[in-house]
Amino acid sequence: MDINQKQKERLEQQFAFIREIDKEKFIGRQTYLTDGERKENDAEHAWHMAIMTVLLAEYSNEPIDVLKTVTMLLIHDLVEIDAGDTYAYDEEAKKTQRERELKGAERIFGILPPDQGEKLRALWDEFEAGETPEARFAHTMDNIQPTMLNDASKGKAWATRGVHLSQILGRNKNTAKGSETLWNYSYENFITPSLREGKIKNDTLPEE
Amino acid sequence: MDINQKQKERLEQQFAFIREIDKEKFIGRQTYLTDGERKENDAEHAWHMAIMTVLLAEYSNEPIDVLKTVTMLLIHDLVEIDAGDTYAYDEEAKKTQRERELKGAERIFGILPPDQGEKLRALWDEFEAGETPEARFAHTMDNIQPTMLNDASKGKAWATRGVHLSQILGRNKNTAKGSETLWNYSYENFITPSLREGKIKNDTLPEE
Repeated sequence: MDINQKQKERLEQQFAFIREIDKEKFIGRQTYLTDGERKENDAEHAWHMAIMTVLLAEYSNEPIDVLKTVTMLLIHDLVEIDAGDTYAYDEEAKKTQRERELKGAERIFGILPPDQGEKLRALWDEFEAGETPEARFAHTMDNIQPTMLNDASKGKAWATRGVHLSQILGRNKNTAKGSETLWNYSYENFITPSLREGKIKNDTLPEE
Repeated sequence: MDINQKQKERLEQQFAFIREIDKEKFIGRQTYLTDGERKENDAEHAWHMAIMTVLLAEYSNEPIDVLKTVTMLLIHDLVEIDAGDTYAYDEEAKKTQRERELKGAERIFGILPPDQGEKLRALWDEFEAGETPEARFAHTMDNIQPTMLNDASKGKAWATRGVHLSQILGRNKNTAKGSETLWNYSYENFITPSLREGKIKNDTLPEE
């Protein structure tokens, strides 16, 4: 195979992947946008977090490689093209989530030329494991972005789903590991207002 | 002002911006997604190009700083929150585009803390000027991404709007400046099929 043929094949694989990931724009999430009407999709969510990372990296507990973190966030939900979005508080769906997502990763990253497919797959695995500074900060973004939107839409998603504070704290148990500053800001400015207004059910109060 | 107060003010400005840019998800474009039904919005478009840049930077005519190019693409359409999307082939709207976008840039980047606002504004100016390797490659992405989607949706947007080949070539006059390889691939694989099927009007043939 000559160089031109090799490059053509590589480009075919790259554009097959680029066309395939268009489907992420159809994967709906449970978060309302700031208009309080339309719900966000995975591609919009990833775009938002990528910009947030560029602006907020200065608050990371540990130094991070910004391009690596941005890339991680841009691709971290691609597996949902096959596995669908699993709502953070849907305990039934969460039981099969890991298995569904692993299959998705296999197929979707497998469309790319092997070197690039392996690189993105490793980045997704790193995100899932959550054990590097970049993965920790990426999870902080992944938790704070919807919390910010839930506050901007006046707690609508929380109220509609009857979400309890203990669930939010459970989901956010690692948010401070990426950035204490951002977790504190998020708790004070995005969670407390909805808690005060009863949009989030406070089940952490001591019984009288 | 003590350090805590300063940091709080900075965070307020950063999150005011982060909340504001949510509006980009409501700015519609003329490109159909791969389903051929729904049209893309600016946030989805930027997300798609950011991943494309990570994967296709290897074809840039000149070496590029990938993080810089990705960031440029992530933010390059924010001005459209105020200015709206200007369709590439709408000659009337294009007359006032620059003025509308400059005002948008002033207001939107002005929400950020000054150091970050100036940085993003400079990046947008650099994109607009198109005179650095990163800006050239970003424009290549900005042209190839919708061309790829127009092909995937079988030329629907071109056919509906009655687009001529000369218009496409005019719009793409700088695409090869970022990457000759990608422009050649795009012309051959995304434009030629719709030209052959009459979805693009061929006005470049010599008169008989």
